Amino acid sequence: MPKSHKTEITVRFVPDGKEVRVPAGSTVMEAAARAEITVQSSCGGRGACGKCKVKLLSAVTEPGKSDVRHFTADELSQGYRLACLTRLAEDAVVEIPAYSRLVREKISLDGLGKKVEVEPVAWKLFLQLPEPSLEDQRADLTRVLEALGEQVSQPTDLSTLQALPDILRQANFQVTAVCSDGELIAVEPGDTSTQLYGMAFDIGTTTIVGYLMHLESGAQVAVDALVNPQAQFGDDVISRISHASTEGGLKLLQQKVVEAINHITLETCRESGVNPAHIYEMAVVGNTCMMHLLLGINPASLATAPYVPVITEARVVAARELGLEMNPHGRIYVLPNIAGFVGADTVGVIIASGLEASRGLRAAVDIGTNGEVIVAKNGRLLACSTAAGPAFEGARISQGMRAASGAIDRVSIGGSSAKEAGGALDSLLQIHTIDETPARGICGSGVVDAIAALREIGLITASGRLLDAKSAPETAAPYLARLEGTGGQTRFILVGADRSATGQPICITSQDVRELQNAKAAICAGVMVLLDEMGAVPEEIEEFLLAGAFGNYIRRENALAIGMIPALPLERVVPIGNAAGLGARLALASAGMRRLAEKVAERVEYVELSNRPDFYSRYTDAMELAPVVTS
Amino acid sequence: MPKSHKTEITVRFVPDGKEVRVPAGSTVMEAAARAEITVQSSCGGRGACGKCKVKLLSAVTEPGKSDVRHFTADELSQGYRLACLTRLAEDAVVEIPAYSRLVREKISLDGLGKKVEVEPVAWKLFLQLPEPSLEDQRADLTRVLEALGEQVSQPTDLSTLQALPDILRQANFQVTAVCSDGELIAVEPGDTSTQLYGMAFDIGTTTIVGYLMHLESGAQVAVDALVNPQAQFGDDVISRISHASTEGGLKLLQQKVVEAINHITLETCRESGVNPAHIYEMAVVGNTCMMHLLLGINPASLATAPYVPVITEARVVAARELGLEMNPHGRIYVLPNIAGFVGADTVGVIIASGLEASRGLRAAVDIGTNGEVIVAKNGRLLACSTAAGPAFEGARISQGMRAASGAIDRVSIGGSSAKEAGGALDSLLQIHTIDETPARGICGSGVVDAIAALREIGLITASGRLLDAKSAPETAAPYLARLEGTGGQTRFILVGADRSATGQPICITSQDVRELQNAKAAICAGVMVLLDEMGAVPEEIEEFLLAGAFGNYIRRENALAIGMIPALPLERVVPIGNAAGLGARLALASAGMRRLAEKVAERVEYVELSNRPDFYSRYTDAMELAPVVTS
Repeated sequence: MPKSHKTEITVRFVPDGKEVRVPAGSTVMEAAARAEITVQSSCGGRGACGKCKVKLLSAVTEPGKSDVRHFTADELSQGYRLACLTRLAEDAVVEIPAYSRLVREKISLDGLGKKVEVEPVAWKLFLQLPEPSLEDQRADLTRVLEALGEQVSQPTDLSTLQALPDILRQANFQVTAVCSDGELIAVEPGDTSTQLYGMAFDIGTTTIVGYLMHLESGAQVAVDALVNPQAQFGDDVISRISHASTEGGLKLLQQKVVEAINHITLETCRESGVNPAHIYEMAVVGNTCMMHLLLGINPASLATAPYVPVITEARVVAARELGLEMNPHGRIYVLPNIAGFVGADTVGVIIASGLEASRGLRAAVDIGTNGEVIVAKNGRLLACSTAAGPAFEGARISQGMRAASGAIDRVSIGGSSAKEAGGALDSLLQIHTIDETPARGICGSGVVDAIAALREIGLITASGRLLDAKSAPETAAPYLARLEGTGGQTRFILVGADRSATGQPICITSQDVRELQNAKAAICAGVMVLLDEMGAVPEEIEEFLLAGAFGNYIRRENALAIGMIPALPLERVVPIGNAAGLGARLALASAGMRRLAEKVAERVEYVELSNRPDFYSRYTDAMELAPVVTS
Repeated sequence: MPKSHKTEITVRFVPDGKEVRVPAGSTVMEAAARAEITVQSSCGGRGACGKCKVKLLSAVTEPGKSDVRHFTADELSQGYRLACLTRLAEDAVVEIPAYSRLVREKISLDGLGKKVEVEPVAWKLFLQLPEPSLEDQRADLTRVLEALGEQVSQPTDLSTLQALPDILRQANFQVTAVCSDGELIAVEPGDTSTQLYGMAFDIGTTTIVGYLMHLESGAQVAVDALVNPQAQFGDDVISRISHASTEGGLKLLQQKVVEAINHITLETCRESGVNPAHIYEMAVVGNTCMMHLLLGINPASLATAPYVPVITEARVVAARELGLEMNPHGRIYVLPNIAGFVGADTVGVIIASGLEASRGLRAAVDIGTNGEVIVAKNGRLLACSTAAGPAFEGARISQGMRAASGAIDRVSIGGSSAKEAGGALDSLLQIHTIDETPARGICGSGVVDAIAALREIGLITASGRLLDAKSAPETAAPYLARLEGTGGQTRFILVGADRSATGQPICITSQDVRELQNAKAAICAGVMVLLDEMGAVPEEIEEFLLAGAFGNYIRRENALAIGMIPALPLERVVPIGNAAGLGARLALASAGMRRLAEKVAERVEYVELSNRPDFYSRYTDAMELAPVVTS
């Protein structure tokens, strides 16, 4: 039978002894995969990396261009070839040396309840290039690009090209190529191929968190956080937008966030002994306004109806353009926004938690300076932003503070033993401060706890009135000594002046109760409107995710008790921490997650609440400090 | 018969009355093309430009997204649709209004013996965008990109994005989008869509020529030239390379060429009343060294074997990166080089003259400061660079000068009348100067003429010796008064001191003859080696192109007489002027020509002469000042 008619061939691998049948014309790599032998490769099978060396023991093929580049004449005559490009036309026996076998598993990174494969857009390859000669007059750039394979394009940065001839010659043509997103971005002398790092950032209105990651392994090397230095121009998004419209304001706000990012980058590098020049990629999430300020884009249009952003698309920015501390040829991937008040941070929450793939009904709130709500079902995604305000971060609360040392973060009514003890003031209420230092103020979870406790005692009514001593019910008798003032001026002392760090009593005021009511009603009403849009009822919610640092501190019981979220069995309420930041880390480590983020941002249906009468009626309904009864 | 089985439909156009059969599912645009009616379109049929408005008189389709964007509800109900996206499922009658018909023909530009379609990479579109509302909260960027169609990507320049919100609002969302190579590069207030210009440059070692073109029509608006100001650092490529290696030298050389480009751009704009900010594209050719210097890349490796360039690939550079006077978001297309001494200018010569498509044997030499030779046959292209030196530009000739006012450009032995007049010195030789002003020196074509004339008189031997009065033959008797000196110091006076502009006699020296011999022998030997490589003989050459300004000045008879090129019938020798500059103009006006240039640069087989013994023997053979006899 003539060879051309033979459509299947047999390939035997040694030393394994495995034998497979594959179509004639298959590559050795494909045949090995069929035999479940994983051959090393870091160039995607383009003949560039030279890691997939195998030896043909029979049916030796003509060497290809890539073979000639990677093997000596001696090796070629022994039958050495690259597995990725060598096609077998007839039955063959192939030896796969130990050094070409991939021993480690594909590395993956934990999302929330899902594994994400580490596949960074940046990669490095150490090249040992032949030196130019009259027989090989290829240009410097061509020499490097051809060693990398045809898929890699020349550097956008002219400076990379300008530096190329000196680097090649000083390093005797032994260099490491750095590629990002299919482009050669830098060439470094010698072998630096293991030094491949990235930073992921979550830029909150209040806090900026940065994560240093090793891109090849997906390992988190260090993490650091700073207060967003823009806070000096106002603690909420609207005051930042106002400041951006003042003379030089936009530039200054951009400079502040860049300084903070640089500070975190240098600090994490210092801690872990990483050279900042070996950071080639960053991935950034944040709310839409923070993303605009980072990019130096005036967010003015966000402040007034119809609240239109300048950009929602994901964007890749050159390190130079922003002046970030990293490799000067590195890039910053800014995740896409969804709308004026639903930003890249929400996209981060979605991709980290897999909401986009949820079949059953799931909901999430990300509570930061604003509260974004997401409802997902059967691939459909709805999102809205509620003007929850920064109450949950302790702002606008009379003695509110961030969740830092000395903040009251937990308040509960004393255990039975305390009650039995018969009324000693401090044993009736269990008050905990972060780091257990004397109280300096109260943070969001402390406010929620305190108000839930006062509701239980009977000192706060369902409508949110903080009763004074005259109006207090019997049940509150043991606590009356903590009440000061009357009517709308009433306040409840959590920690007396003698025991606080400030010399002032730490209290909950009538106004604090009102602030919390507003904030929780906004979130709850947002959830209800999205459920209506989805044609669903709260009971169907299989999982309710609480994202943001606050989500980790708050006691779920109390969130349910005060009606911040619809009434659900406790186990369905799941705190997931800084999911936005995790989303940034996933987008840093995985090109696939970037594509997912972009698809998600396009798919999310944004629901504008400002012109919806049903939102305002839901909001009014949700003001009550009691579990949300919906049926 | 059910509709789905109907595979062809009939479409009738009014008012033409033309009727065509097309497959069901064809667009109106396709059906119109079949009927030979050209419908306007400037977005490539993506529903973006709205120029292809037609009215369905029957079989009215559901309006698509683009229809809704371009027509009022009233127009939609009347049957108005966009021809490009409207697919016809059944027989239909379609009215094509006059305003949607394309009256002008496709514009084309003349190459040498070929027509090139004008299809610039940059285009503009005036957009009348709907203003944002709570019902249409699309981001500014999304609003612009969606109006342009999905093929256009967001701007690389962050500054374009930063400027976007203000421009949109100040111009009431009536803006002109500027796109280049599939990217939105700028947005301008109001309608500037007709203001679309580009510059093409030929950067010679000696002279820089710039052409201002209107990109939509392909019309040349103005042209200007300057001496390359780098000349102050040496008149040849090697001295520029040496200077580039001195401290600050590279930067200075780059700055000089940028200044010259800017000067030419501003001058052509001033002449023609064009705003330089409306120049969005440039296309540049030049030799490899000039291209490196323009890009700020050290060309040091060109100076020593193996003469390797840093880059041969074509490159797109941002206007900002080079500091060029044009729209700050504009781009410069640098044509590809072939090798260290065969540059983008040679690629320009090839694409302008269509050598790449030549079936029969054709040859070309581009004579500038160096002499590049190309031989083409049957799609195969060979090229080499000959170290001809700048003799043909008048350099290294004792009284040589560029082809400028006062240069002796033509020398011939006087006509019979002069001879009959019986020997008056000036009537024996016809000497012409450029602008017919008193002689200041002699340019390349003058040198060739003078030496050919002296050969004819018998004062120069075939081996190149300039005879002194003692050795002169009988035939030279009438000219002996013009001879001075003896042996190697002999010189022949063309214009006496009393009649020259310099007060010095203008002469040809023994050394000048030697310079010319070297230069012409190098070119001739280059041609012969390439012919050998091609397996061809000179007699087969169907056309021999002389490119470069010199090619227009030189008398072909004399080029043949002194053996600068192989002996051929005169009519086969064709001067083509600055074909490199024409190549730059074609690449400016046509994306297709850019792709062709890139393919050509890859396809040309570069022949390195420096290590070829056959070149040196050919060179020695070609020293003789006589027609090249090859058979």
